[in-house]
Amino acid sequence: MAPRIPAAVGERLAKLAASGGDVADLAAFVAIPSVSAQPPHAPDVRRSAEFLRDRLRKAGLTAEIWETQGHPSVYAEWLGAAGGEAAPTILIYGHHDVQPPEPLEQWGTPPFTASVRDGRLYGRGVVDDKGQVYCHVLALEALLQETGRLPCNVKLIVEGEEEVGSAHFDALIEKKKERLRADAVLVSDTPMLDRDHPSICYGLRGLAYLEIEVAGPDHDLHSGGYGGGVANPGTALAEILASLHDKRGRVAVAGFYDDVVRMPGRERKAIAKLPFDEAGWLKTVGAPAAVGEQGWTTLERLWGRPTCDVMGVMSGYTGPGAKTILPSRALAKISCRLVPDQDPGKVASLLQAHVRKVAPAGVRVDVRVLHGGKPWRAEPRHRVFKAAARALEAAFGKPTVFIREGGSIPFVRTIADILQVPCLLVGFGLPDENAHAPNEWLDLSNFRKGTLACVGLYAEVAACIRKSPPKPAE
Amino acid sequence: MAPRIPAAVGERLAKLAASGGDVADLAAFVAIPSVSAQPPHAPDVRRSAEFLRDRLRKAGLTAEIWETQGHPSVYAEWLGAAGGEAAPTILIYGHHDVQPPEPLEQWGTPPFTASVRDGRLYGRGVVDDKGQVYCHVLALEALLQETGRLPCNVKLIVEGEEEVGSAHFDALIEKKKERLRADAVLVSDTPMLDRDHPSICYGLRGLAYLEIEVAGPDHDLHSGGYGGGVANPGTALAEILASLHDKRGRVAVAGFYDDVVRMPGRERKAIAKLPFDEAGWLKTVGAPAAVGEQGWTTLERLWGRPTCDVMGVMSGYTGPGAKTILPSRALAKISCRLVPDQDPGKVASLLQAHVRKVAPAGVRVDVRVLHGGKPWRAEPRHRVFKAAARALEAAFGKPTVFIREGGSIPFVRTIADILQVPCLLVGFGLPDENAHAPNEWLDLSNFRKGTLACVGLYAEVAACIRKSPPKPAE
Repeated sequence: MAPRIPAAVGERLAKLAASGGDVADLAAFVAIPSVSAQPPHAPDVRRSAEFLRDRLRKAGLTAEIWETQGHPSVYAEWLGAAGGEAAPTILIYGHHDVQPPEPLEQWGTPPFTASVRDGRLYGRGVVDDKGQVYCHVLALEALLQETGRLPCNVKLIVEGEEEVGSAHFDALIEKKKERLRADAVLVSDTPMLDRDHPSICYGLRGLAYLEIEVAGPDHDLHSGGYGGGVANPGTALAEILASLHDKRGRVAVAGFYDDVVRMPGRERKAIAKLPFDEAGWLKTVGAPAAVGEQGWTTLERLWGRPTCDVMGVMSGYTGPGAKTILPSRALAKISCRLVPDQDPGKVASLLQAHVRKVAPAGVRVDVRVLHGGKPWRAEPRHRVFKAAARALEAAFGKPTVFIREGGSIPFVRTIADILQVPCLLVGFGLPDENAHAPNEWLDLSNFRKGTLACVGLYAEVAACIRKSPPKPAE
Repeated sequence: MAPRIPAAVGERLAKLAASGGDVADLAAFVAIPSVSAQPPHAPDVRRSAEFLRDRLRKAGLTAEIWETQGHPSVYAEWLGAAGGEAAPTILIYGHHDVQPPEPLEQWGTPPFTASVRDGRLYGRGVVDDKGQVYCHVLALEALLQETGRLPCNVKLIVEGEEEVGSAHFDALIEKKKERLRADAVLVSDTPMLDRDHPSICYGLRGLAYLEIEVAGPDHDLHSGGYGGGVANPGTALAEILASLHDKRGRVAVAGFYDDVVRMPGRERKAIAKLPFDEAGWLKTVGAPAAVGEQGWTTLERLWGRPTCDVMGVMSGYTGPGAKTILPSRALAKISCRLVPDQDPGKVASLLQAHVRKVAPAGVRVDVRVLHGGKPWRAEPRHRVFKAAARALEAAFGKPTVFIREGGSIPFVRTIADILQVPCLLVGFGLPDENAHAPNEWLDLSNFRKGTLACVGLYAEVAACIRKSPPKPAE
């Protein structure tokens, strides 16, 4: 048991785990299909916010809904630490919205019915991010119920639009920045390197998400009667998409790499030393090979290099059999993962210019920007990171590693810019838990160690801040 | 009124048109959704065969179902001409299956409810090919009911798999070739050049239809966590599709043009003289420009040059919003329209070899051949073509033109090879009637002139054959 975890809290959490009460509790949250990308689910996203607000109140915090122009966030706080306003304050971030569950037919059990099999909890959002939010809910509740207090002031902000690019969240953060003032930020929305290494993430990629629409004839045409007579939007879109990369796997959009900060040699060395099992990783991915931009290792590509990836393509007839039509339209969704110091708006503009330039004759092309988020990187040698590493090692009984993450959490960059305090990304998911895919799952043992780790994290980070308030991470 | 049309027959058809009885009759045939490409519609294809068999019996012919390994055909005959077996015999071809109706939401009225608006009949199959089959049904019925005879022996074969490449039709024809023996073949499944020119088609393109499937990871991946780490099947497919053409719009598959017979100069001159309204054509297509392989006019490209066109593409997420997944699979449907002397099997093999060669690293690629059909070209200076042209001019009161067609009717090449007699492609559709697309329609005035033309055609062609039995068209 970690030294900073009160015995009663540890016992309470152990009992909860033994009874499965923690899983049943989380299952009620998972049951709400808070799919932020799909408008018919808007009432569900609101319902999940209200559910979480009520749950946090039950845990012993004050909690409220914060409205945005889109889906609502939940805000909660407990500010009763010794020293009052001057006491160390931690801001915890999570999100209560989830990815669409499609394709539904690939799920083993229904996505919104949390199901336990072989030590795993299956369901949409169990790891991304409802389960991780629940680690904090259960940790805070255990501390408040068993000891009547927390080791520091705690604020929680749980947003409802993370899976759609946090479109309205920046405005909310800006408006509420005084309420959100804290000495450190704690985010649980990233995976561990693997089961044997609790991990602290010090970098996130950004995102620029676009949609390309190619229009040709104003209706589908008989491919015999018209094939060869007019441009084919399907072919035109393929040519546009193929033009996005060169033969070395680099993004072939003029200016795309201009603002990329090249990974320093010492970071590449540190990454090379990580116990990354590439063969095992590839097996969980189920792909024939790990390929991508030449000249970089797989982890370097995933963490420190930008991408331009096809998310979806649709054109013409794709049902059974052989329908012979020349399609009138073709659509592609594209996401660029960005690294410091790329800017999503600038990258989107470069993409738009590129597509306009390469679009073949005979079609009309429209490029729409759907959303974006800035990349982020902190300095992992900061002493708050070391304090957090100790808390993790105590809870997991295993060494902590410092990693980056290929995904995007737009909030992190926003709050880091506004508060100018360290952001600690400490997540309890595993990389192969199918976040964003069918059969998303959460390792139950990590769910419970993560809850315990949260208890320790609050104490370690608070003690570190008490000793001397931190300066900005970078 | 054309000289060879008996007055009673002309009057009967005029009365039928005035009452709308002909349209109501056809509407019952259109109401059967005989979509050969979609397995759930198999019983409907059978039902449409039975409907047509019964309708032909009612017209006065003997009729039966001819089974195949796939959807059934209908065969009918009337062999009572003066001279018996030695009398001229015409074999008429059509098909009773139709294209899938999707996308349904683009139809103004339901596809299987024939609806008259502004002199047009709307519905799936009205022009391709149920309406054209009905021109013959009504013409034969009028002759038999009013005169008790036909000007020659007539055989009819109406297949049920034309829209899926006539997969089992060749075997049927081969098996039944003695029953099908005739002096000339008459096919009504091609469009007129335009409303002002009844047309005889002397060339068809062939078809090679393939499906390309690209497989990467065995499930969709979070594009943040994995983007850049493994090959993207959507990108890989785009690169494969883009590689199919060079910058001049030529198909960039090695050997693709090896067997193409270059259009002779005199044919190019004849095509250049046709009253083709390219601007009007482009307007009905609704495309920004007429583009394609460089060095050829639009009609030359449509009729005499091969293509390699995307029919459909599907990969990843294409619903609303911005789902960030790296897709596990990508699928494309491809059709090559072929010209003499290209062979569908050989072209399909060339395509397969090409795709295997250009497939990028990190994905698995499968290329499946769905179906194929050989191209066909006849000699339009043959005297049977001239006889047919006279019959058309009489019915339409307008000059007949000789054209080719970009589409494929595999049967024509098969029967031409087996019977070694002239094939006359005389269709009554217009090029902009949305065959294979939503809102397929048939010009009612052409439907009626076409029926009248059929009456004249039987007589003119029979007389021509009586004078001296024709030799093969080529």
